[in-house]
Amino acid sequence: MRYHKIPDETIRRLPIYLRGLLFLSEEGQQNVSSHDLADFLRANPGQIRKDFSYFGDFGTRGVGYKVEHLIKQIRKILKLDVVHKAALVGVGNLGSVVLAYQGFKVYGFDITAAFDIDSKKIGKKVNNIAIENVSNIQTLKKRKIDIGIITVPRAAAQETADALVKAGVKGVLNFSPCYITVPKKVKVLTIDIAMDLARLPYYMPSC
Amino acid sequence: MRYHKIPDETIRRLPIYLRGLLFLSEEGQQNVSSHDLADFLRANPGQIRKDFSYFGDFGTRGVGYKVEHLIKQIRKILKLDVVHKAALVGVGNLGSVVLAYQGFKVYGFDITAAFDIDSKKIGKKVNNIAIENVSNIQTLKKRKIDIGIITVPRAAAQETADALVKAGVKGVLNFSPCYITVPKKVKVLTIDIAMDLARLPYYMPSC
Repeated sequence: MRYHKIPDETIRRLPIYLRGLLFLSEEGQQNVSSHDLADFLRANPGQIRKDFSYFGDFGTRGVGYKVEHLIKQIRKILKLDVVHKAALVGVGNLGSVVLAYQGFKVYGFDITAAFDIDSKKIGKKVNNIAIENVSNIQTLKKRKIDIGIITVPRAAAQETADALVKAGVKGVLNFSPCYITVPKKVKVLTIDIAMDLARLPYYMPSC
Repeated sequence: MRYHKIPDETIRRLPIYLRGLLFLSEEGQQNVSSHDLADFLRANPGQIRKDFSYFGDFGTRGVGYKVEHLIKQIRKILKLDVVHKAALVGVGNLGSVVLAYQGFKVYGFDITAAFDIDSKKIGKKVNNIAIENVSNIQTLKKRKIDIGIITVPRAAAQETADALVKAGVKGVLNFSPCYITVPKKVKVLTIDIAMDLARLPYYMPSC
């Protein structure tokens, strides 16, 4: 099967569906209709049907979609069916929260390394991961780590990104409130929790 | 001007544009073409033009869009042109990070209250906000706080949401890794940093 033509907006929604389906699976549900899934996720059933049709899953009338099958397919499309090793740079307050966050494993991510410049932190463990000197970033390729997570202060974000790219990472999750520049072959996602909040007032009822 | 027909996907992208424009404004840039903005944000220039056309801004040929004007318009559409007061519930590791996060002010959000059940935390200050007993949540309406931020453990998320809704909040930003149920008139956004990461491998080049 070829997945080339899946629109970016569908790719953006697939993790949302996956998350909902994993939850339903946990609850023991075997089948789900687009209508019930939409209701659960507060999404649009037509949109869900269209999104799923891009990878050839049209469900069965009266039965809906098979939850486990759908989970497997979405994981495969998103390339989450192999474990991705990630390294985190900057073990401050936010970095520590991210390191301790249990939600990554669900999607096949394993944070296996953490770096900081503070000699007082180096050697200490957070969530069972020993903090290393940033100079060790160069060992990432050898350690088959292909994702970098940036949780350093804004001023250090670009040089951190440069070091990660030089070390061969292919994807960067950036938590610093700034834009970083990387070669086109590297994919960057910038997370800004305030930016997510910025959508809220639009949908809130007026007084 | 009426903004009723702006698609949800455009609304989702507006904060991304706003963030980029605020950055350009900070750098002293007065005009920007859809092409340069797209390049900067790694977005699609045609998409940007289409999104902006929904609120009647078509730019000027050869000059592009006026940065400040666009910022003002987007803020207005997203209802970010008034300050929204927010309350945070659950001052653990993540809650403390969110409380200390400076990025909310940019979008007109002001976290003015924080709650916890731990008597050892109550009365202490984080980022100059005194932590209150959760029983005080009922005072939110009187204090004109209309947004709730949930950073409690998963097991307490639903009851926290219920208390916030009862106290009159109209929007909820949920950081707990679970689905919460609220009346339809209340808008919920669930933030899952791992879910954002789940889009990354799809765009990463294969070995």
